[in-house]
Amino acid sequence: MSSEDTPAGCPYELSNQEVVWSGRWIQTRRVGFKTQSGTQGVWESTHRNTKPVDAPADGVSIIARVKKEGKLFILLVKQYRIPCGKMSLELPAGLIDNGETAQQAAIRELKEETGYTSGKVVMETKLCFLDPGLTDDSQCLVVIDVDGDAPENQNPVQMLESDEAIEVLLVEQSQLMNYISNLETSKVVAEATLLAYAMGVQFASV
Amino acid sequence: MSSEDTPAGCPYELSNQEVVWSGRWIQTRRVGFKTQSGTQGVWESTHRNTKPVDAPADGVSIIARVKKEGKLFILLVKQYRIPCGKMSLELPAGLIDNGETAQQAAIRELKEETGYTSGKVVMETKLCFLDPGLTDDSQCLVVIDVDGDAPENQNPVQMLESDEAIEVLLVEQSQLMNYISNLETSKVVAEATLLAYAMGVQFASV
Repeated sequence: MSSEDTPAGCPYELSNQEVVWSGRWIQTRRVGFKTQSGTQGVWESTHRNTKPVDAPADGVSIIARVKKEGKLFILLVKQYRIPCGKMSLELPAGLIDNGETAQQAAIRELKEETGYTSGKVVMETKLCFLDPGLTDDSQCLVVIDVDGDAPENQNPVQMLESDEAIEVLLVEQSQLMNYISNLETSKVVAEATLLAYAMGVQFASV
Repeated sequence: MSSEDTPAGCPYELSNQEVVWSGRWIQTRRVGFKTQSGTQGVWESTHRNTKPVDAPADGVSIIARVKKEGKLFILLVKQYRIPCGKMSLELPAGLIDNGETAQQAAIRELKEETGYTSGKVVMETKLCFLDPGLTDDSQCLVVIDVDGDAPENQNPVQMLESDEAIEVLLVEQSQLMNYISNLETSKVVAEATLLAYAMGVQFASV
């Protein structure tokens, strides 16, 4: 393992790493790899250009637990996603701005995307990879309790950027898996983090 | 909304869609968009070149519930991910081959990556998007029960392709969130679907 392109801990020998395309938001890279058994190949990947140097991850996703009239709801957003050519049902999410912590980004994004005012931050995870065979794009998950009965959350008003068109939904946590399972995927597709959370709820005790 | 680049249901007017780079595995695209309020921008995205025409999604991830000596474990895999420059802790997963259903791909990948023989397929989801702001890369989640006490699962032997080096772990479902929270992310980072599943388990009843 002698190549200077090979990071510490990598079981492959890497070579000829190059940026094959770089745009405003992302760049595409290619690198040769050789396994310990001698098999050779090429790995192609995508990387965001936008992550602030000190940010804990590229972005945050928010599990916003809205307690309202004695019931527990999860806040969802639905928006058209150009890369997918389709509507996508997602946890509220966004990129972390320069100088922000994950919690700060989560509280800000929740307000902007849904209009809801955050209550207690219950948990903040370390970063995770969204699609590690393809990209190092990463996020922290932040769990926030929202008081749905509070005056400031009776008529939540979004503060969207001009390129955003986002529909807000409240779905009872106990109905989340059922709600996602009934989506017509020709029209709306759930995002993986939301789906996996719903499955964890469903399979917690069975 | 007159551009021929604009799909049905898209709230933006799209124009000048182009493939800016295309490799063996992925391609990078760029498209101009104009919102209803008149804001203009460019969206850059990544797409796999490898999805079989009839496949239900690009890949599958597997929630393998191993029941062994009266306890419930989740099967995890740890492998170096070149795009991330780091070890990644993941649900077993893989791309769907030509002609395969999601269930068939899941049963095959589970055997190849972990050596474990599948029992009952408990659930198969529709497709979900892994990182919808960046890519249309998609997967189905398949929940499989595995009999960890069965003779064929006493000494599971992986059947890896020559470019794979994968460590298999069994973590008790009740300890999953705790296990992931304690990862040193300078060395190992969890994948988002796994983390979100663990959070669903954790927050199912609190």
